[in-house]
Formats: sequence, structure tokens, C-alpha cells
Amino acid sequence: MSELNYALDTFYFLICGVLVMWMAAGFAMLEAGLVRSKNTAEILTKNIVLFAIACTMYLLVGYYIMYSSGAGGILPSLGFLIGEENSVDAVLAGGEDAPYYSARSDFFFQVVFVATAMSIVSGAVAERMKLWAFLAFAVVMTAFIYPVSGFWTWGGGWLSEIGYSDYAGSGIVHLAGAAAAFAGVLVLGPRRGKYGKNGAIYAIPGANMPLATLGTFILWMGWFGFNGGSELKVSDVVSANNMAQVLLNTNAAAAGGVIGALVLSKLWFRKADLTMALNGAIAGLVSITADPLSPSGLGATIIGAIGGLIVLVSIVSLDKLKVDDPVGAISAHGTVGIWGVMVVPFTNGDAGFGAQLIGVIGIFGWVFVTSLVAWLILKAIMGVRVSEEEEYEGVDLVECGLEAYPEFTVGGNK
Amino acid sequence: MSELNYALDTFYFLICGVLVMWMAAGFAMLEAGLVRSKNTAEILTKNIVLFAIACTMYLLVGYYIMYSSGAGGILPSLGFLIGEENSVDAVLAGGEDAPYYSARSDFFFQVVFVATAMSIVSGAVAERMKLWAFLAFAVVMTAFIYPVSGFWTWGGGWLSEIGYSDYAGSGIVHLAGAAAAFAGVLVLGPRRGKYGKNGAIYAIPGANMPLATLGTFILWMGWFGFNGGSELKVSDVVSANNMAQVLLNTNAAAAGGVIGALVLSKLWFRKADLTMALNGAIAGLVSITADPLSPSGLGATIIGAIGGLIVLVSIVSLDKLKVDDPVGAISAHGTVGIWGVMVVPFTNGDAGFGAQLIGVIGIFGWVFVTSLVAWLILKAIMGVRVSEEEEYEGVDLVECGLEAYPEFTVGGNK
Amino acid sequence: MSELNYALDTFYFLICGVLVMWMAAGFAMLEAGLVRSKNTAEILTKNIVLFAIACTMYLLVGYYIMYSSGAGGILPSLGFLIGEENSVDAVLAGGEDAPYYSARSDFFFQVVFVATAMSIVSGAVAERMKLWAFLAFAVVMTAFIYPVSGFWTWGGGWLSEIGYSDYAGSGIVHLAGAAAAFAGVLVLGPRRGKYGKNGAIYAIPGANMPLATLGTFILWMGWFGFNGGSELKVSDVVSANNMAQVLLNTNAAAAGGVIGALVLSKLWFRKADLTMALNGAIAGLVSITADPLSPSGLGATIIGAIGGLIVLVSIVSLDKLKVDDPVGAISAHGTVGIWGVMVVPFTNGDAGFGAQLIGVIGIFGWVFVTSLVAWLILKAIMGVRVSEEEEYEGVDLVECGLEAYPEFTVGGNK
Repeated sequence: MSELNYALDTFYFLICGVLVMWMAAGFAMLEAGLVRSKNTAEILTKNIVLFAIACTMYLLVGYYIMYSSGAGGILPSLGFLIGEENSVDAVLAGGEDAPYYSARSDFFFQVVFVATAMSIVSGAVAERMKLWAFLAFAVVMTAFIYPVSGFWTWGGGWLSEIGYSDYAGSGIVHLAGAAAAFAGVLVLGPRRGKYGKNGAIYAIPGANMPLATLGTFILWMGWFGFNGGSELKVSDVVSANNMAQVLLNTNAAAAGGVIGALVLSKLWFRKADLTMALNGAIAGLVSITADPLSPSGLGATIIGAIGGLIVLVSIVSLDKLKVDDPVGAISAHGTVGIWGVMVVPFTNGDAGFGAQLIGVIGIFGWVFVTSLVAWLILKAIMGVRVSEEEEYEGVDLVECGLEAYPEFTVGGNK
Repeated sequence: MSELNYALDTFYFLICGVLVMWMAAGFAMLEAGLVRSKNTAEILTKNIVLFAIACTMYLLVGYYIMYSSGAGGILPSLGFLIGEENSVDAVLAGGEDAPYYSARSDFFFQVVFVATAMSIVSGAVAERMKLWAFLAFAVVMTAFIYPVSGFWTWGGGWLSEIGYSDYAGSGIVHLAGAAAAFAGVLVLGPRRGKYGKNGAIYAIPGANMPLATLGTFILWMGWFGFNGGSELKVSDVVSANNMAQVLLNTNAAAAGGVIGALVLSKLWFRKADLTMALNGAIAGLVSITADPLSPSGLGATIIGAIGGLIVLVSIVSLDKLKVDDPVGAISAHGTVGIWGVMVVPFTNGDAGFGAQLIGVIGIFGWVFVTSLVAWLILKAIMGVRVSEEEEYEGVDLVECGLEAYPEFTVGGNK
Repeated sequence: MSELNYALDTFYFLICGVLVMWMAAGFAMLEAGLVRSKNTAEILTKNIVLFAIACTMYLLVGYYIMYSSGAGGILPSLGFLIGEENSVDAVLAGGEDAPYYSARSDFFFQVVFVATAMSIVSGAVAERMKLWAFLAFAVVMTAFIYPVSGFWTWGGGWLSEIGYSDYAGSGIVHLAGAAAAFAGVLVLGPRRGKYGKNGAIYAIPGANMPLATLGTFILWMGWFGFNGGSELKVSDVVSANNMAQVLLNTNAAAAGGVIGALVLSKLWFRKADLTMALNGAIAGLVSITADPLSPSGLGATIIGAIGGLIVLVSIVSLDKLKVDDPVGAISAHGTVGIWGVMVVPFTNGDAGFGAQLIGVIGIFGWVFVTSLVAWLILKAIMGVRVSEEEEYEGVDLVECGLEAYPEFTVGGNK
């Protein structure tokens, strides 16, 4: 192992981390495009602040919990900050356990993952949740809830030991985010005017489709870092080939997801619904994230396309159940996240259905239950939902004191 | 050759591919900004779906056609999928023919080029074409038309043998996209209300200039991958120096294009027309793409600036000929693409005007004729143009079942 | 030193340069979001054209002034263009002075820094300045003013000799940009309607908050290249570790800035003002830019958080002084830039308060005085401010001949 290997792997990690950080902008734009204009400034605020909170809390305690706890365990160790950087001597000593990339680059890559998980939540609870209750939840989620299940899996805990296989986190990140969102939506209830009498469901169109499309493209781009960096190494032939396969498959699955969702949308609704094509792209990406390495390009396309079908069925089904998720996050990251985890054994001989299922149950159960408790405590302490009048007026003015588009939406558009 | 060389070159290829993929977002934003709001959701849908189709069709058959056909030939071989990854042994064997980067990374880099070519088409046919006819054309273009001329050039076919020189594809990608667009525009005819009696030409302003500007900046950024990756190698001193010169020149040419177009716009129209500055940037980038390596930085600035002049003259001229291209794509990628190809011999001693001219004629002829046939068949089978009423109402509602900005454009803005 | 080291360091430089170029889009979006719709097309034009001018002027003369002048001096040498690329022999010769990355990659990285400094100016003078006077100033700033103080510091001039320490340019880039902006704002005067009788201050809300948020995320992302590339090397263990620390700290400081500004905004104004959260992010980033390497992650968070407090106080204070800066650029880059420079000695033992203070005074003094002279000359020659009627109507139509959002803002929204 040379210094140059170490440098290349560290640089690779950092660039992939930059791409994952960029996903925060993707979620912000996607969510801002899919809500009404009167709630846009607030969801933008949530997105940038949750990112700041995630980075700070994970630095303070989350990373320690996730990566300093005892191998194979359930209960994590508590502690704070992120440890020492590797010395040159330790690197040059070589051997099996020698560090081959910067410890700081590992933190940088991991911290943007936490923010991704939290970003999933903000869209689902949009247009009716109090800003500061949401931010308080972000503290709990990024400091504690996510790091614990992260310890169980990537941190070497019990799920890792039973053979749960989740390359870049269909379950660990996306299902976890969706589980927290699902708990939040149940506590909040649907937006006023979404569901009428006799099972009527009213569409509430998003205000800005170009923003939503931009957000999807940003996520697509950022995902190359998300999955590509999860190989954890690039500096030898096998690792480099693997990273190439991962990027090829990530792209192919997203493409498949778009096509799957668009075709189903056309057949089912008679329209090429843009929002479904966007959700199809995200669904394709989530589908492949649990194993973007084992499938062939064609296999990845098919896995993504099925994800694109699933997300549509899930969105329509949740709507019938009056689970009001304005951006479809629970479906795209949760339902499809489960699909992503469970499809791994079809192409990866090292994974088994049992361990995958236990992983799904373990992650969903942990995050859903602890999130539910957190949301309920926040509800009791400070309330989680804005008043009926504030919801009608839009949360932007009451929470942020400004409008997102003060010149475009005059009077009647509220 | 070490494993580390292979890893660095693969990583470089992949990162450049990520940047080129990002250009898809650039085209989407540019085109969405330059059309009217009533047609915005549909052009966003086209852009994300054409990318998905390009990735899927190129995986299925396009890459095989382009890179598995006999050297020097005209007719390509048919086949599908993308072959095997390089083995570690093959890499370590070394020698002239040893692979020095991942075969999968090559596919990833090439596939986003196809999508770029196809993205050029969507803007030119905006605001009046049926969505599904467009998507059907995307299948033909990315599975067959582009790969065949791609085989003639980068795939080692006859144009490659006669010495046609086109570093990153001013002709192979940009002129090809523009030729397909031109055929489509001729078949479609202009938008209603664009041309009046007695030669009157009516400006149809785009709805969202910040989006168009964002799209241009995205393209500018992505072009560093487009041209920078086309060096195909970075892991030695000469290659690294070349990549640096390529990025410097790409940037300089874009800057020159902006300045050229802005100054001419001010002199000609008495206004600093933003859309012309944006087209100038793209023209500068297209100008330098056929050879971003040979010119000096100053030379690149001048080549780009002339491209910025040409694009303005071309846009105005095509408008007088009633060739209605809402975003100026035929001018920026086609007319300027020819300029880019033909200017190569001035700075690159290995290129000759004859071969360049044959390349222009060959690529334009092939893509234009086959595209025209494809568009005419689609016209006969399913029709290519929306009805007069649909065009008046906007294609968003009829094709996508939603509006891009439902709260901003009330009533009279249609 | 191997060819591979050279290649990796060059590639690293180029990728960081691409990220910094992307900041130009960030400034464009941020500023376009924070002005009124009637002035949006013009500020977009300014942003893309200033970038083009910066790239061209720095190529022609700026880089020569900054990097070819005598060590330790005050007066720069004059000359033009950017010198020769490194030969393979020079690289392989090795030794202390051997080049370890491409000279062209150095130019590419430096040129996007100049554009950044100039981008800071455009926001502060928005909504009332003549386009062509601004562009003329851009020529002077990027060809001469910035390169001279750049020579004093990074070019080896007198500020470098006395030990002024500014890793990536809190002072050299951000304070410099803010000083030029400050001079411009003083010459221009405030926008009509901003300040009323008896000290009344009227808020003029920006037209598009999602754009402003997107711009901030873009800047955040691009800053990883800005600070990460300023290590100038990545190919050994220490450099790679340093780059990782720099990215970690850059991210942590931005997060701290968001939190600091948001909390103070809530306490002070009773609202979670999104624009203050955005300015907080930028303030956090500027705070850490003078030394993103020495602090711990926690230290960086705190430095950024204090920056987030300072930017709020500065914005409110400048408003009371009737210094009308529509986007808060003077505060975020200037006031906070001083904070960034002065905090360095707290964590970096090699820096001293005296040298830092002299640096602040030297850079601010030079840029402010020369900019003031330039603005005043421009005022005398061509005028710098649009007429009262043009300001009322908006500068878009008069300068650019088009509207940014022609369908969204009908009549009364002006």
C-alpha cells in the first residue's frame, strides 16, 4: 500500500461525499416544487436547517454511536466527537488493518448520508407541520435514531452479524427515513381539504414543476456518489471495475424507473404524469441501492422498472388509506426501499431472504417506534401541527415571515 | 502500468461521465425556461424520459452497434448488450493493447453522450409535438441513428479512417442532434402565431429566464466532463497536461461566446439580450468541442467568440426562413457545430479541411435523412403534431394532465 | 515523484476548479432570487457576462500580474498571457522545485476564484446600476484590482512576506469582492423606496426564494472545491488527510452558520427568516475560508456559528446606515470575511493578529480605494445609475429588452 493509494481513495471518498451533499439541494428543490406556493419558503427553511442540524448532531454524538460501539451488539456505546485522524506511520505500516483512506473523509461521507435520511422526512410532513417541532425531531433522528440502526448494520452490530446485506442503504437510509416520515404523518394527520366525504380524494398540485424536475435530476446525479462511494475503495482494478458497474447500474435503474412509472401512468391514468416519472426515477434509484453491484445493466434496468411500478401503486394505495404524503416520499423511499432490500438475494448469492427480511423488520420497527414516540412527545410538549387558520393562510408567513414568490401569487392563488 | 493507473483513469472517466449526465438537467432547465408556461411540464417530461430511453436503448443495442462493428466499414454489425468487463489478468499483462480503464466506465461515459445528442432535439420541436411521437423518435435515434454515425467516427468506421478529427463531438454529437432536430422541425412546421403575413415574425418569449440561465450554467459545468473526459486518459504527465488545457480552453471558449454574442446583440438589437448571451455560451462550447486541445487559451477564446457571432446570425436567418426553433438548438449545435469541425485544421496540423468537410456532410446527411424518414413514418402512423386547440391550450394538460405552474399563470396568461 | 502523483494532483485541481466554476451559478441564482422580478433578467445577464469577462481578462493580463511579479514587492510586473506548460522532463527531474501539477490546471483553478470575487459585487449593486457600467468595472476589477492584491498575498508579494495567513481567501477573495461592492454602493446610493422619512426602512422582498435557496446550496457545494483545492495537493497521506479535514470543516462551519443565523433571527425577529438562514450558510463558509484546516470540526462549527450571528448584525446595521445592499453581500463576504481572517490565530499558531490585521487593512484599503476611483470615473464617463423611470419600470426591459417572467407578473406586480 502506497501513500498514493491512500490519497486516491481519500479523494474518491471526498468527491463522492460532495455529490451526496448535493442531494440535499435535490430534496429541497423536489419538495419545494411539489408543495403549494404558500408553503414553499417554510419547506426550503426546513431543508437547509435539517441539513445543518444533521451535520452538527452527527459530529457531536451520532458518528460515535454508529461506529464506536461493540461489534455484534444491540445497545450502542455513548460518547461524542469523531476520534483521531490516521497517522502517516499507521498508514505506511501496512497490513490487513492499516487504514487506507482518511478517517475524516469517512466522517464526511457518512455525515451526508444522515442528512439524506432526514431529508426524506421533510417532504412527507409538508404543508401542515410546525417548523420548530420538525427541527426538534431532526435533532433526535440524526443524533440517535439513525445512528443506532446504523450501528446495527454498517457499524458492525447484530444485523451485520446475521448477514443483512445493504450496499448503500435502501434499508439503512431510505427505509429508515420513510419510517420516520410515516410515523410523523400518522401523528399529524392529512392536510385539510385533501380527503372529502365518501372517500373523495382531491389532488393538490405542486406549484413548480421545473423545480421538482431539477430536484430529481440533482438526486440522480448525487446518487452516483451515494452508491459509487459505498464501494469504499477505488484504487485497485477490482474496486475500480466495481465502481464502474455501480454507476452503470445506478443510472440504468433510474432510467428503468422512469420508463416503468411513465408507462404505467399512461395506461392507468391515460396521462404521462410528470410527477410520476420523477417518482419513478427516485424509485429506480432506491430499488438498486441495496445492491448496485451484483446485477447486470439489464438486470438493474428491470429492478428499477419494477420499482417504478411499485411506487405508483404505493402512492395510490396510501392515498386511499388517507395517509397524506404530499411528495410521495414514504412510497418512493419506504415501499420501494423494502423492494430494494428484498430483491438482493436474486442477484447476490451472499445474501439470504431471511436476513433481508429481518433487516427490513428491524430497521423499520426501530425507526418507526422510536420516531412515533418522539413525535408524540413533541406533540405533547410543543404541538406538531399548525392551526387551521395558519394552514389555510400557508405556513410561510407565520413561520418564516416571508413569502416564497411574493410577486407571482396575488390574492386568489392562496 | 499499475493497478493504480487503471484505477485513476477509471475514476476520472466516471467523474467526467457524472458531469455529462448533469448536462441532461441543463438541457431540461434551458428548454423549460425558454418555452411558455403552458408547455413547460411536457418539455420537462420529454427531457427526463428521453434520458431514460437513451440509457436503455444504448445499453440494449446502441453501444454494440457503435463499438463492436468492423474497422473502417459503413454498415455496422448488429448485436446487443455491452460485453465483458476487463479481468485483472488482462490489465496486469500490460502491453500495447492492455485495457487501461474499466470497460463499464467507458459505457457509462458513452451513454451520457447519446443522451446529450437526443436532448438537443427536444428543444427545437417544443410547444407543438406530440409527446409519444417524440419518445418513439428517441428510441430510433438512440438505438440506431446516432450509433451508426458514432461507429463511423469514434467506433473506427470509414470516417475515422479518412482522418476526420472530432475530439469530443462538435459534429458527432452536436451536429448530429441538430440534424435530427432540423428534420423534425421541417416535418412539424412552425408554431401557430410565430409567423404572420408579409413576413412578420413574432417573438414568443420564454416563461422563466432564471431557469434558462441555470440550464446554461449546468451545461457549461457539465461540458468540462464532456470535453475533459474525451482525452480518455489522465494518469501520465502528458495526459494530465492535456486535460488541463482542455478545461482551460473549454472555459475560455464559452466565455468568448458570451462576449461575442452579447456585443453583437447590443450592436444589432440595441439590447443586451440575455437569451443571446446564453446561446453565446453554448455556441462557444460547441465551437471548441471538435478540438479543445490544440488551440491556446487565447485561440480558444477567439474560436468561441466567433461561435457567439455565428449563433446570432444563424438564429435570425433561420427565423427569416420560417424554421421555427423555440430554443435556438439548430443554430447553437448545428450551425456552430459545423464551425467547430471546420476550424480544427487551423490549429491542429493532423486535421485536413477535406476530411472535416466530408465528416460534416456524412454525419449531417446520415442523421438528417434517416431522421426525416423516421419522423415521416411516425407522422403517418401516429401523427407528430398536436391539434390546433391543444396547441392553443398548451400541451401540458393534454399530454401530462397537469400544469407546470398552476398558481402563477391564472387565466389570461395562456 | 511519479507521473501518477502529478496526474492525481492535476486531476484534483481540475475537479476542484469545476466546483468553483459552479459557484458562478450559485451567485447567479442567489442574486436572481433576492431581487424583484423586474430586475431579474438583468442580474442574470450581469452574472454570466461578468464570469466571461473575468475568465478573459485574467487570461489576458490578470494571471500574469498576480503570479509573475517580483517576490515581496508592492508594484506588480505587467505582461500578458499565462506562460508555458510543464515539460515531462521538468516533472521527472524531481527535486524541490519540480512542478507537481499542471500549470494549466493552476490557471483554471485561479481563474474561477477571480470570477467568484467579481460575483460578490453584482448582488450588492443590483436593481439600480447600468449594465454596461457594471461590465466596464468588471474589466478593471478582474484585470487589475484583484490581481494586484492577489500578487501581494498568494503571488508572493509583501503581505505574504509579513506572514499574512489566508488559506483559501476570506480576505483575498471575499473581503476584496465586498470592498469593491461597498465602494459601488456608496457611489450608487440606495434604491428608490428603500429608505423613507424619519429613518423608516422598507423591506423589498426578493421574488423567488427557491432560486435563492438553490443558489446557496450551489455555493455550499462549490465551496468544497474552493477550500478543498486550496490545499494545492492531495497525493500523499498528509495532504489527503488535510483535504478531508478541510471539507469536514467547511461543511461544519456552513452548518454552524445556518444554525447561528436562524436562532438569532428567531430570537430577534420572532421569525425563522429563510433569507437569514441562507446568509448564515454563506457567512459560515466565509468564516472558515481563511483557515479551514487548523480548527477541529467542533471549532469550525463554532467559528461558522459566530459568523452566522455577525452577518445578521451586520445586515441590520448597514441598513440603519442606509447602505443598501439588496442581497447582503457586503455583510456576508466583507464583515464576515474580516471575522474569518482575524479568527485564524486562535487555532493556527503560525498566524499572528498583527499580520492578519495588516492584511485586512491592506486588502480592503487597496480594493476599496481603487474601486471607488474606478466607479467615479465610470460615473463621470457613462453614468452608473439608471434613470428614476427606468428604475421604477425595472432594468430588465431597458437593458435586456425582455422580462424574466413575462407570464407570471402581470401589471400590478411591478
